[in-house]
Amino acid sequence: MPSFEHQEFRDRVARTQARMAESNLDALWVTSPPNMNYLSGYDGWSFYVHQGLLIVPSRPEPIWVGRRIDVACVRHTTYLTDDHIHGYADAYLVPPAHAMTFVADVMKSLGLAKGRIGVEMDTHYFTARAFTTLAAALPDATIVDADRLVNWLRLIKSPREIEYMIEAGRLTDAAMTAGINAIAPGVRHCDVAGVVYQKLISGSPDYYGDIPDYQTMPKGARTDAPHLSWTAEPYRLGEACTLELGANRFRYNAPLARTVFLGKPPAKLISLAQVVGEGLQSALAAVRPGTTCEEVEAIWRATVGRSGLVKESRIGYSVGIGYPPDWGERTVSLMPGDQTVLAPNMTFHLMLGIWAADGGYEISETLRVTERGHACLSTLPRELVVLDA
Amino acid sequence: MPSFEHQEFRDRVARTQARMAESNLDALWVTSPPNMNYLSGYDGWSFYVHQGLLIVPSRPEPIWVGRRIDVACVRHTTYLTDDHIHGYADAYLVPPAHAMTFVADVMKSLGLAKGRIGVEMDTHYFTARAFTTLAAALPDATIVDADRLVNWLRLIKSPREIEYMIEAGRLTDAAMTAGINAIAPGVRHCDVAGVVYQKLISGSPDYYGDIPDYQTMPKGARTDAPHLSWTAEPYRLGEACTLELGANRFRYNAPLARTVFLGKPPAKLISLAQVVGEGLQSALAAVRPGTTCEEVEAIWRATVGRSGLVKESRIGYSVGIGYPPDWGERTVSLMPGDQTVLAPNMTFHLMLGIWAADGGYEISETLRVTERGHACLSTLPRELVVLDA
Repeated sequence: MPSFEHQEFRDRVARTQARMAESNLDALWVTSPPNMNYLSGYDGWSFYVHQGLLIVPSRPEPIWVGRRIDVACVRHTTYLTDDHIHGYADAYLVPPAHAMTFVADVMKSLGLAKGRIGVEMDTHYFTARAFTTLAAALPDATIVDADRLVNWLRLIKSPREIEYMIEAGRLTDAAMTAGINAIAPGVRHCDVAGVVYQKLISGSPDYYGDIPDYQTMPKGARTDAPHLSWTAEPYRLGEACTLELGANRFRYNAPLARTVFLGKPPAKLISLAQVVGEGLQSALAAVRPGTTCEEVEAIWRATVGRSGLVKESRIGYSVGIGYPPDWGERTVSLMPGDQTVLAPNMTFHLMLGIWAADGGYEISETLRVTERGHACLSTLPRELVVLDA
Repeated sequence: MPSFEHQEFRDRVARTQARMAESNLDALWVTSPPNMNYLSGYDGWSFYVHQGLLIVPSRPEPIWVGRRIDVACVRHTTYLTDDHIHGYADAYLVPPAHAMTFVADVMKSLGLAKGRIGVEMDTHYFTARAFTTLAAALPDATIVDADRLVNWLRLIKSPREIEYMIEAGRLTDAAMTAGINAIAPGVRHCDVAGVVYQKLISGSPDYYGDIPDYQTMPKGARTDAPHLSWTAEPYRLGEACTLELGANRFRYNAPLARTVFLGKPPAKLISLAQVVGEGLQSALAAVRPGTTCEEVEAIWRATVGRSGLVKESRIGYSVGIGYPPDWGERTVSLMPGDQTVLAPNMTFHLMLGIWAADGGYEISETLRVTERGHACLSTLPRELVVLDA
């Protein structure tokens, strides 16, 4: 069953249609897996082939178009009735055939041959060829860029969405705790990763976790890099490891990062952790409705700058529904120039990763903007984790 | 350290350059994560932003272009020297800025402003906007479709690649065995999934597994769908579940599917399993150098057709390096019309999924074409798994 009431999906579609009207769109072709999930509940691991939702102004429900063998996934995970489901045969998977000609035929059958059709130009899984094939198959249509139209609608979460993110946060805390507890000198890196995944997925006695995005957890010399996994090397006394984990609850993510040191940490790392910790506190204290994203970043920048620390990359981003390869929403970033004004029930991953050449330090929180300030989804201490030998 | 000798990467680049010469390409922009891994070893979870390898005829090494914070991942996972690494600042992530203008600048600096540049038009992560931005930034260049050029070079595996796939096969067997052993009436679906992931990742005492693609394991009424995960529902006596698992060893996959029934299976399922099993044996027996892919499928089709069974979708595909969302190589399929001639050290996932409305049955093998026939990577029995109550 879908994880939201039917009416919530209808409301989301209606908000999409309102935005479409502002751009005079006759249709919107939505291929981003998170956006498909947001508008319909669709949750199949089928986005390695071309598929999408078609939104038209006259219908309160999306139209799903995808590979025929995935039609059963639509029936299991959405409220869509069969007249809203169009499956194509495997022959469309073999070049020079292309699934977007099938999609174009569906569009034509809906009177869109001369329509103004929005597509997500810079979205994962909407390839260059998907675009050129659609344009060629609909020579009288106008294809316009509606990239991130739906992403922006996802920025403020509903009460049910917040509930799922809170649950994801609890699972992330449990996985982080289990991972940290498993770390000890001599234990293999991959065995800790196995414990983390087991916990993320089995979840708690009350609820489970769905397959999350990649969990990054480099250790030792590899902590200078943000996006690495694990090996079979044992943990060693005197080395650090960073863990960026994020459980997934009905596709909603609550990422969290911590850094662990085995043994007595070097003074430099203790100092870095303290500086970053002060920056984190200052940024959190700045989060409230009315503040802009760049103001939050500026406060962090000023705080850590007093100690000479500079972080070039952004310090966070809007988070919610995620499918590999990304749990970010691809809209708002906590970085200079982003003047988005914070509002209640926006949710951010505030990610303070310092990937210095001589070793990294990461700490992060997933937070919700509240009426007066913020609430973090994690209850874990916000500090360097030191494991005594 | 990279998982192959430097020379193996150089050989792969040289073969790529030979194919580029046939198409008169002055450069090839490779964005597919498996292809990037194949040509350089690059293995960071950074493909949610624009990145790629640039191959030019005059250089034996690829040129990596990606986000600046991922440069450290390049240093850890490839042999590339810093003069082959170009990182862009986070400002390129915020529209209307676009990372492909940075990529175009790198191309210009290499004298490619008027070049003939191949791109992977229908490849995950090469978006429509990436294409139009590149074309606009290089108005005097000729952008041509070189989709799957590198994919096709991956078809025949090297001895080291075969070794990794054999290791992946052992891990898949161990995870499948652990998963099946964990299934029992009353056990939660997600707890079995947790055991499977733990095993896939922790691996064996000898080696670990890297993060795999999604593992599909629907049960009960959801077995009519191929691409669903799990819930917290307990397993029940009298229901089936399908497991399609695949461990990942240095990014090489060895998928395997089995179907489990709890209790006494209905006669219809027993019969279906027998028919599919005969079809599997007939297809395997047909695999040898010189046979075409469509001939293998035709033999399967004829065998199961005698019992009235028809499977519309393809029965397999070339498999090797995989990154989410796909472990298929996107080249050869075992389906009508595919006249690719089998040759030693091609590797296939022979996937016989029957997703009938009243319940599914899946069985698959990952196999290697040998000098005389085939070798399966799994040692598990090829039959319906019946768990007595």
